[in-house]
Amino acid sequence: MNKHKIVTAAMLAIGDELLSGRTKDKNIGYLAENLTVAGIDLKEVRIVADDQDAIVEAVNALRAKYDLVFTSGGIGPTHDDITADAMSAAFGLPCLHDPDAMRLLGEMYERRGLEFNEARQRMARMPQGARHIENAVSTAPGFIVENVHVMAGVPAVFQAMLGWLLPHLPTGATVMSRTVVSPFGEGEIGKPLTEVQKNHPETSIGSYPKFDGKGFYTEIVVRARDEAVLQSAVSAVEAMLDAISATRETA
Amino acid sequence: MNKHKIVTAAMLAIGDELLSGRTKDKNIGYLAENLTVAGIDLKEVRIVADDQDAIVEAVNALRAKYDLVFTSGGIGPTHDDITADAMSAAFGLPCLHDPDAMRLLGEMYERRGLEFNEARQRMARMPQGARHIENAVSTAPGFIVENVHVMAGVPAVFQAMLGWLLPHLPTGATVMSRTVVSPFGEGEIGKPLTEVQKNHPETSIGSYPKFDGKGFYTEIVVRARDEAVLQSAVSAVEAMLDAISATRETA
Repeated sequence: MNKHKIVTAAMLAIGDELLSGRTKDKNIGYLAENLTVAGIDLKEVRIVADDQDAIVEAVNALRAKYDLVFTSGGIGPTHDDITADAMSAAFGLPCLHDPDAMRLLGEMYERRGLEFNEARQRMARMPQGARHIENAVSTAPGFIVENVHVMAGVPAVFQAMLGWLLPHLPTGATVMSRTVVSPFGEGEIGKPLTEVQKNHPETSIGSYPKFDGKGFYTEIVVRARDEAVLQSAVSAVEAMLDAISATRETA
Repeated sequence: MNKHKIVTAAMLAIGDELLSGRTKDKNIGYLAENLTVAGIDLKEVRIVADDQDAIVEAVNALRAKYDLVFTSGGIGPTHDDITADAMSAAFGLPCLHDPDAMRLLGEMYERRGLEFNEARQRMARMPQGARHIENAVSTAPGFIVENVHVMAGVPAVFQAMLGWLLPHLPTGATVMSRTVVSPFGEGEIGKPLTEVQKNHPETSIGSYPKFDGKGFYTEIVVRARDEAVLQSAVSAVEAMLDAISATRETA
């Protein structure tokens, strides 16, 4: 039996505007944070254009490789919203107006006194048999086909969908992390930190240079799925920094 | 002869911290904006972990598919900085301490009165024969192998490297864009906007729903490589919005 269950994930962000730089993505970091807390390991992210071939190729590669795939973007009512068609093509399913989504959207537009026109009906399209991801912000549902979870690109709606979705996902053992701030730059700590990593193989130790405008300091992040393992490595990092400080004071 | 020269690009952002959500990437949007201005089409972005197999697979896929590849992250002095090794593996080249980089870094550390130790020497490692990308912020160079441009992950350094690099790149015809703000949501404009797109096939028209906390409005972005073509489509979008307004006032 595995001591710690691992669930892997990938994200596919879809949209020309992300690749032109016009829109700065806000969903990748949000998803990453939330998956980490939930105990799901985000392993890869891709951003592709509103281009059916590019979407199909990416989603097929990612869904074969990871336990879960999350997408953002391209499920609105306009001509450049082609994610439902692309997902249908990827799964070899017809893209249909989902009856439940049609009812939900129809009722919502009726309440608002707005015509449930052809463009708005596009938002009810999804691969045949897809399950809904509920969305309290704009009503139009995201959808799930097998291990692929299709969500909106507008951050408020993406976040609402993810909030609904998270409790429904399989999760693994949470990765805990602790950060030790090193006043020394990476060049100073590189070699002894390599030793600490070697002596604590069950942890993953990351070293992140920070530049404050004058010089570099370092944030050392220790990650592990077990508290005792984590604490042991953190202590070793702290002892290493103390040793460097002592050398400095002696010198 | 092609009327407009197209140069395509991909970005590969490398780092566990981007996938855990601990660090929010700032380089993708910056690169995207700068490439758009330079007339280079960013077509795909991937984010992968500090994992050699993942880096090699991604860079080999991207460099075969696009004219230019840009990477960020993993070229510092610590054990988790494995981008130089991964790039060497991807190209089947030995990863060596580059003599010019050793000299540059050695001189810099001598000026600063710091030991040019083993960890710092790691920053001089690159695939044999790679050319430098200069970096005025921290001296340690990025490098170029064939069509792959390897840069730092720290935004200040990434930006310095890109600033040096941009004038050295082949560029295509710049894509111009103009934004028309629609007070109507996407559901209102979806169908007529599809018609405008059909009638202006040389443009790419994107529709971006914006949520202001109460309701949706839409930013319509028209892109083209030719000013007259662009202006014609923008006028058509404006006429479409005027027509919707007129209907509303009559009703």
